[in-house]
Amino acid sequence: MKGSLCIAGLGPGNEDLVTPEVRSALASATDVLGYTPYCARVERRPGLEIHASDNREELQRARAALELAASGRHAVVVSSGDPGVFAMAAAVFEALEGNVAWHQIDIRVLPGVTAMLAAAARAGAPLGHDFCAINLSDNLKPWSVIEKRLRLAAEADFAIALYNPRSASRPEGFGNAMAILAASGAGNRLVVLARAVSSPNEKISVMPLRDVDPAMVDMRTLVIVCNSATRRAGRWIYAPRCAS
Amino acid sequence: MKGSLCIAGLGPGNEDLVTPEVRSALASATDVLGYTPYCARVERRPGLEIHASDNREELQRARAALELAASGRHAVVVSSGDPGVFAMAAAVFEALEGNVAWHQIDIRVLPGVTAMLAAAARAGAPLGHDFCAINLSDNLKPWSVIEKRLRLAAEADFAIALYNPRSASRPEGFGNAMAILAASGAGNRLVVLARAVSSPNEKISVMPLRDVDPAMVDMRTLVIVCNSATRRAGRWIYAPRCAS
Repeated sequence: MKGSLCIAGLGPGNEDLVTPEVRSALASATDVLGYTPYCARVERRPGLEIHASDNREELQRARAALELAASGRHAVVVSSGDPGVFAMAAAVFEALEGNVAWHQIDIRVLPGVTAMLAAAARAGAPLGHDFCAINLSDNLKPWSVIEKRLRLAAEADFAIALYNPRSASRPEGFGNAMAILAASGAGNRLVVLARAVSSPNEKISVMPLRDVDPAMVDMRTLVIVCNSATRRAGRWIYAPRCAS
Repeated sequence: MKGSLCIAGLGPGNEDLVTPEVRSALASATDVLGYTPYCARVERRPGLEIHASDNREELQRARAALELAASGRHAVVVSSGDPGVFAMAAAVFEALEGNVAWHQIDIRVLPGVTAMLAAAARAGAPLGHDFCAINLSDNLKPWSVIEKRLRLAAEADFAIALYNPRSASRPEGFGNAMAILAASGAGNRLVVLARAVSSPNEKISVMPLRDVDPAMVDMRTLVIVCNSATRRAGRWIYAPRCAS
């Protein structure tokens, strides 16, 4: 039997944001693998094995999924948001590179609505002009790289989406990032704090960067630092289409 | 009767990438407004009026949609991809800002799978590390801004998604962008050219930046210039999760 591996994005949380393509892959899967809270979003049914694991185990999970597909199973690795944005797709291809026997496996990456798009939609259109996305976790990259990218992104006047802004194990990074951006002239920019976006506990706040307190932010928050031209229109904010 | 306005993203082309949220908004709409090819993707039914217009008429379309919602209709403005990324959401809020009478309208932005996510999924995981998105159209911003952002994005070693890379009216911009990136040290980076992604005519090519010929690219192409660490794994490419 020929197996397969799908690397699928579940979107930010609301089931109405899961694409039919992903829904269909889950319906024909024999095995679903993922971080425990993402596996919890997958409906149980006879014939489906769920392999939930911790969020520091990406590479082991990727190898396990490739092993299952190589053995003829139909495996789906689930991420929240989009699987290609700071999520499982890169880990699967890293594992794949290490074993040529796996290169013939039928693999598909199924895109999803990544958190910054859902957060932007709730606030208005802060990503309506050029923007960037930076992962603030320094588990896998030195802080000096993050700092350099923040400075250059501010100089470019990109809107800046910050993923994984703050965790218990590295509480100081987000405050440092805000200080770097303020020192780069972005202190007056508007900031969107989108917590648990599209879930029942969603909370969206908008304020100038200089008023942001790191305690307002946790790992479930997606932060968008708007570009300098971003304006308010009623209760909404938007990045004008024209730039000078 | 209280009207409403949804600004909805249809995804990159494949109907399996349209979210149930957007499907539901289209099902209860009285009016759909959009660029003609996007309106062509909406199923006709009795009671639904389709208002198709040209792609240079964003602001007029936005005002027409707000007028319809203010008059009690249920209007849906459709964009391809995500409505907040170089699409109609910013135009609607720009129109809204100009007329306080519209500020009480029930507005929702419904996110979608933007082209760079679908393109990345087909190639592997080129957006698995920090990245940016730049609109190469200089209809609404000076070329000097685009040039500055390209240089800073190369220096930051972002993967760079280029939207609207080339049109008949400005054929030279994309070649200039490639030259700027090559001069910024990105000549060896891998580039993904994703034409008509997720449609039956989809074509994905991967090559080093120095081998890209502008004639390979048109307005239906989404270009991803990978970061310098991006590697091949079998037929796939991916941005490693670790950065030095």
